[in-house]
Amino acid sequence: MGDFKSDFKNKGIAINQQLAEVFQKNMDTPEVIIEAMKYSLFAGGKRLRPVLMTETCRALCGDVDVIMPLALGMEMIHTYSLIHDDLPAMDNDDLRRGKPTNHKVFGEAMAILAGDALLNYAVETMLQGTQGLDGDMLSNYLAAMRIIMGAAGISGMIGGQVADILSEERVISLQEMDYIHMHKTGALLEACVQSGCLIAGAEPATQGRLISYSQRIGLAFQIVDDILDIEGNEADLGKPIGSDEKNHKATFVSLYGLDASKLKAAELEKEALEMLKPIGVNTRFLEDLASYICHRQK
Amino acid sequence: MGDFKSDFKNKGIAINQQLAEVFQKNMDTPEVIIEAMKYSLFAGGKRLRPVLMTETCRALCGDVDVIMPLALGMEMIHTYSLIHDDLPAMDNDDLRRGKPTNHKVFGEAMAILAGDALLNYAVETMLQGTQGLDGDMLSNYLAAMRIIMGAAGISGMIGGQVADILSEERVISLQEMDYIHMHKTGALLEACVQSGCLIAGAEPATQGRLISYSQRIGLAFQIVDDILDIEGNEADLGKPIGSDEKNHKATFVSLYGLDASKLKAAELEKEALEMLKPIGVNTRFLEDLASYICHRQK
Repeated sequence: MGDFKSDFKNKGIAINQQLAEVFQKNMDTPEVIIEAMKYSLFAGGKRLRPVLMTETCRALCGDVDVIMPLALGMEMIHTYSLIHDDLPAMDNDDLRRGKPTNHKVFGEAMAILAGDALLNYAVETMLQGTQGLDGDMLSNYLAAMRIIMGAAGISGMIGGQVADILSEERVISLQEMDYIHMHKTGALLEACVQSGCLIAGAEPATQGRLISYSQRIGLAFQIVDDILDIEGNEADLGKPIGSDEKNHKATFVSLYGLDASKLKAAELEKEALEMLKPIGVNTRFLEDLASYICHRQK
Repeated sequence: MGDFKSDFKNKGIAINQQLAEVFQKNMDTPEVIIEAMKYSLFAGGKRLRPVLMTETCRALCGDVDVIMPLALGMEMIHTYSLIHDDLPAMDNDDLRRGKPTNHKVFGEAMAILAGDALLNYAVETMLQGTQGLDGDMLSNYLAAMRIIMGAAGISGMIGGQVADILSEERVISLQEMDYIHMHKTGALLEACVQSGCLIAGAEPATQGRLISYSQRIGLAFQIVDDILDIEGNEADLGKPIGSDEKNHKATFVSLYGLDASKLKAAELEKEALEMLKPIGVNTRFLEDLASYICHRQK
C-alpha cells in the first residue's frame, strides 16, 4: 500500500500542475476572485475524482490528454460544492482540511461568487477541450460532458444536497439516506468512471462493471467518512470530529452502529474488487484505490 | 411602438413555453428545488436576452430551432445571477419584480442551491442541443457555448459583479463604472448577438456591427436603469426607487446627472440604430428593441 500511496500522491500532483496551468491565463477580472477560487481549489484536496477519471481512462487505453479538461472541470465542480456547502446558510463550517473555509477568509459574498465562478470555469475548461476533436471522439466527449453535468445537477449532487438539507433534525429512513449518499457523493464518482469509459470507447459490459465498482467505492467512501467522524484523528482530518452527532445528522453509523458499518465497508471493498476482475486490463491502480478508500484514516 | 410591444411580448411567451417544456421531464430530485428554480425563472421576466439571441439569429436567416437551447440556457444563467445577487450576503433585496425574492420564500440555503442548479441546468440544456448536430453547425454551436460561458464567468458577468461589490461605499472612476457595466450587464447581451451570428453563419463585418449594437443597447439599458431608479414608478418597476442613492451606489446618473444621462441614452440609441443599417437584412425588430430599451418605463 506504500507504493500506492506515493503513486496516488504523484498523480494528484500531476492534476495540480494541470489545474495551475488553466489559471495561468491573463484574465480580465479583479484579482480577488481568482485568489478566492484558487484558495479552495489548492487547499490540499486528494484529487480523488480527477485521478479516478484519468486512471479509468488510462486502464482502458484511452487518451489521457483528451480526458484531462473533463477531469479538471470535475475537480472544480467538486470544489465549488464544498465552498457553497460550508456557507453559514448551509453547514456553517469554519474549517475545511485544517484551514479556514472560503467565506471565513474572503467573506460570504465573495465565497458565493467564487463557488459560482468555479462551476462556470469548470464548464469553460471542459468546453475548451472540445477544440481539435471531431467525429466519434467529439461525440463521446460531449456525451461525457452531459453525464458530468447531469451528475452535478438536480438529478445528481445538488439533488443529494437538497435531500440532505431536508433531512436535517429528523429521523430519516434507510431509503432516504441511500438517496442522499448516492446523489451527494456517488453521482460525481460514477460520472468519473463513465467519462473514462466513454473517452476510451469501452464496451457496455466493461462500462457496467466500472459503474458498479464506482457505486461501491462511493458508498464505502461515505461510510468511512461517517466512521472517521467518530473514530478519526482531528489532526489527520483537519476538522473536529463528532460533528454529525452534534448536528443530529443521520448517518450509516447512527442507523446501524459502528461494527455493522465497518462490516459493510469491508463488504463493499470486496464487491468493488470483484467487479474489476473480469475486465481483462491492468486495473491494479483502481483495485488499490478501492482498498485505500475503505481503509483511509483521513 | 404598440405593435413592437405586443410582438416582443409574444416572443417572450414563446420563450416561456420552451422553458416550461424543459422542466416537464420527470426529474429524480426533491420537488422543492424545482419549485425554487421555477419560482424565479417564471417570475415575469421580459426574456430580453433569449429574444435578442433568437431574433438576431432569425434576422440573419439562421435556424431558430438550433439556437433555442442556447437561448433557454442564457435565460437560466441570467436568472441564477439574480437569485444570488439578491441574497442577504450580496444586495440583500427583499423584492424582485414586485414579488418576494427567492431566499425570502425558500430560505437562504435553498436559494443558493436554486441558483447553482439553474447555472448547472443551463449547461445541461445547452449540451442537450448538441445532439443531432454535426460538422460546421456543431462547431459553431460549441463556439457559441464557449462565448456564452465566457460571458457568464470571471471574464464577464461574475467579474462585473465582483467589481461592483468592491466598489461599494467608495467613489469610483468612470473607468471602473464602465468595467462594471460592460461586464455585469453588457457581456451577456453581447454573447446573445454573437451566438445569433454564429448559428446563422454571419460574416465577420456583420458580426462586428451587431456586437457594437449590443454594446450600445447594453450600456443604454444600464443608464435607463439608473434613471428609472430616480424617476421611475415603483408600481411599474416592482421595487422601491431610490435604492442606488440609499446604498451610496455610483451610477451614471450620480456621476453625470440626469440630463447628461438622458442625452447619453439618446445618443446610444442613435448609434445602435446606425450599426444595423448597412447589414442589409430585415433588422426591424432589433431596431425597435434598441428604441424600446432606451425609452422603457420598467
